[in-house]
Amino acid sequence: MAQLNSSFAQLEGTYIFTLIEERLQALEQSVPRDKILNFGIGDVALPLSSFVAEGIVRAVQEMTTVEGIHGYGPSDGYPFLKSAIREAEFSSLGIKEEEIFISDGANSDVVNILDLFSEDTSIAIMSPSYPVYVKACTLKGMRNVDLLPCLEEHGFSPQIPEKKYDLIYLCSPNNPTGVALTHRELANWVDYAKKHESILLVDAAYASFIRSKEVPASIYSIEGAKECAIECRSFSKSAGFTALRCAYAVIPQNLMIRQGEKRVSLASFWKSRQNIKSNGVSYPIQRGAEASLQKLGQREVREQVDSYLQLAAKLKGALQTCGFTCYGGVDSPYLWVKTPLGVSSWEFFESLLKKCYLLSIPGCGFGKEGEGFVRFSCFSTREKIDLALNSLQSLRGNHVICSC
Amino acid sequence: MAQLNSSFAQLEGTYIFTLIEERLQALEQSVPRDKILNFGIGDVALPLSSFVAEGIVRAVQEMTTVEGIHGYGPSDGYPFLKSAIREAEFSSLGIKEEEIFISDGANSDVVNILDLFSEDTSIAIMSPSYPVYVKACTLKGMRNVDLLPCLEEHGFSPQIPEKKYDLIYLCSPNNPTGVALTHRELANWVDYAKKHESILLVDAAYASFIRSKEVPASIYSIEGAKECAIECRSFSKSAGFTALRCAYAVIPQNLMIRQGEKRVSLASFWKSRQNIKSNGVSYPIQRGAEASLQKLGQREVREQVDSYLQLAAKLKGALQTCGFTCYGGVDSPYLWVKTPLGVSSWEFFESLLKKCYLLSIPGCGFGKEGEGFVRFSCFSTREKIDLALNSLQSLRGNHVICSC
Repeated sequence: MAQLNSSFAQLEGTYIFTLIEERLQALEQSVPRDKILNFGIGDVALPLSSFVAEGIVRAVQEMTTVEGIHGYGPSDGYPFLKSAIREAEFSSLGIKEEEIFISDGANSDVVNILDLFSEDTSIAIMSPSYPVYVKACTLKGMRNVDLLPCLEEHGFSPQIPEKKYDLIYLCSPNNPTGVALTHRELANWVDYAKKHESILLVDAAYASFIRSKEVPASIYSIEGAKECAIECRSFSKSAGFTALRCAYAVIPQNLMIRQGEKRVSLASFWKSRQNIKSNGVSYPIQRGAEASLQKLGQREVREQVDSYLQLAAKLKGALQTCGFTCYGGVDSPYLWVKTPLGVSSWEFFESLLKKCYLLSIPGCGFGKEGEGFVRFSCFSTREKIDLALNSLQSLRGNHVICSC
Repeated sequence: MAQLNSSFAQLEGTYIFTLIEERLQALEQSVPRDKILNFGIGDVALPLSSFVAEGIVRAVQEMTTVEGIHGYGPSDGYPFLKSAIREAEFSSLGIKEEEIFISDGANSDVVNILDLFSEDTSIAIMSPSYPVYVKACTLKGMRNVDLLPCLEEHGFSPQIPEKKYDLIYLCSPNNPTGVALTHRELANWVDYAKKHESILLVDAAYASFIRSKEVPASIYSIEGAKECAIECRSFSKSAGFTALRCAYAVIPQNLMIRQGEKRVSLASFWKSRQNIKSNGVSYPIQRGAEASLQKLGQREVREQVDSYLQLAAKLKGALQTCGFTCYGGVDSPYLWVKTPLGVSSWEFFESLLKKCYLLSIPGCGFGKEGEGFVRFSCFSTREKIDLALNSLQSLRGNHVICSC
């Protein structure tokens, strides 16, 4: 009988949403489901842009005609979409179309990229961050994985390590802290990467939320980044594609890896990997992604992102008025709220739920450095934020919240 | 600097379509591109069913409304699609909805399933077959991989091996031979698997082409298969979804694997793997797949499959009239044509191209046991088949084809 991949036994921790569900069930008496205001999951809350929808519908209808028959597409995406991405996102940054690889999700990319690396690769991962990075490394049997603590005293920016790492996972704007790395911080990472011949894997799934001047929309605006950085972007959060599935990774051709003693370009191996393991992304969905980058599409999806950011500012203000220390929400749809009086993430989570019917996510679900915080997702609507604001008004100060 | 995964160096052979492209370029003077009748790639040749298209369009339009907002779906697919699949394909076979796992392609499933297995797993793969099985094993660093020759003298059915294998890749109906395993042959494999506690991975991407009475549409009609077989199916070939991307794997809950000394159900680990590595399949595409299983959708897609099979029969007849020995085309859109007078796959390929402008695929592209054959794909149209038939009439006998 076959043996299971032993890495499964190393997977740690129950998925945070499963734990939350258990907690909600236990609290069902005091917190009825229909009263809960859900600021937990980071998922779209507004309808799909009609311009994007038209792009998809047009492609589907085209496929019903003899002239518009579509079969297998390129495993790394259609040139029309690569061209639209290059123009909309990287026109002044010198990224070429052949350096853009379309996929079905940034989640897939940050996980699957590990297929390119030897199991001895030394890896550093921001913590707190999206739990999938660590889980994917575990499942892949990566032997040398360290966490880079992102602490409050450093503005949640990971400190440049003394140790040399081959591959560094940076998530900026960060999920869950909502904090984005500035130009200077990214430049320091590029310096580090050049010095140590490291590769920076930048998960920029929330790039479209960046509004601060000191935060570049892409790491490729830093000189030298094209020799050391992979950038993963997604239509999920920029254009409400979580149900549609389209994203892309940028792997510059000058980004090298060692194959034995040779230095080889990583991108061609990604292409091989994708050719073998994937048949690409749905054609109509790629047309929808293209539409989101066109002028009218851009206007519609940008309005949605702006709306989420306004809601984040509103909720942040209200939480601060209540006396809570609150980060993020400027270049990100996430608020990272410090638990008052040193209570634990889970205690604060439960208080917010019981007293205000507000569902957050305990920060410890994003790694132990997330303990002492909760995350609020502002993928929401005006109506729901107003209800949350009303609910928060019942609190006079953050000492109340903790006397549960 | 990070080291590349050393498995890349083990990948053998250039992709057959790349080699064909090189050959076409070399022949450009004698075989102009616009004269070529392409029977190479196994890809849809008919427009998308309008009923399926309506299903997708309805879902996209739904998403533009407040009531129809859709975000992340289940990583293993929506219950509505699982239910439709169970009813349409497995109603009498006792497969449960929770044993059906939706994905973006059978290609993805047959590759990704390897993530569940230890690298010591002994694997046997039908040969000739879809080249990705071997490549995926290589890339995954699988150390014990053997081929199971499918030879003409055994009707291209792989012989039950004496050796014990943990995992056996069976492709039925087979790509490229076009031959499907009969009830008796599958029953022999189930017996083997039960005896050796092996797992059968059945790639049944072409199941909708099965018409022979002795060939079961699913391995689960064999008693005991639910304890030893994974079946991979796809909407790609049954409903023209190669550009849309939707498929599924059936992993019965009683199918066990060893974790250390324990016996555990494989399906739950697949679910974990998918949860970590994927965010599921595009919602509107799943709605399209559902439509293809509804009564009107079934009628439309079945007509297309029937049409491909009719074309296969027609082309097979014409090739046989020319004196060629020809297999497949009964339960499959593929014809497997023996090269005459012992010439090589590439020689025959080139003769067909030069003399008749017919583009086939050299059988050696599917493994060395494919040498001495070429594959014709009958994903085609009446018009193109008629042109091919005309072209073949110019041949008086198979000796002519080889005097090139």
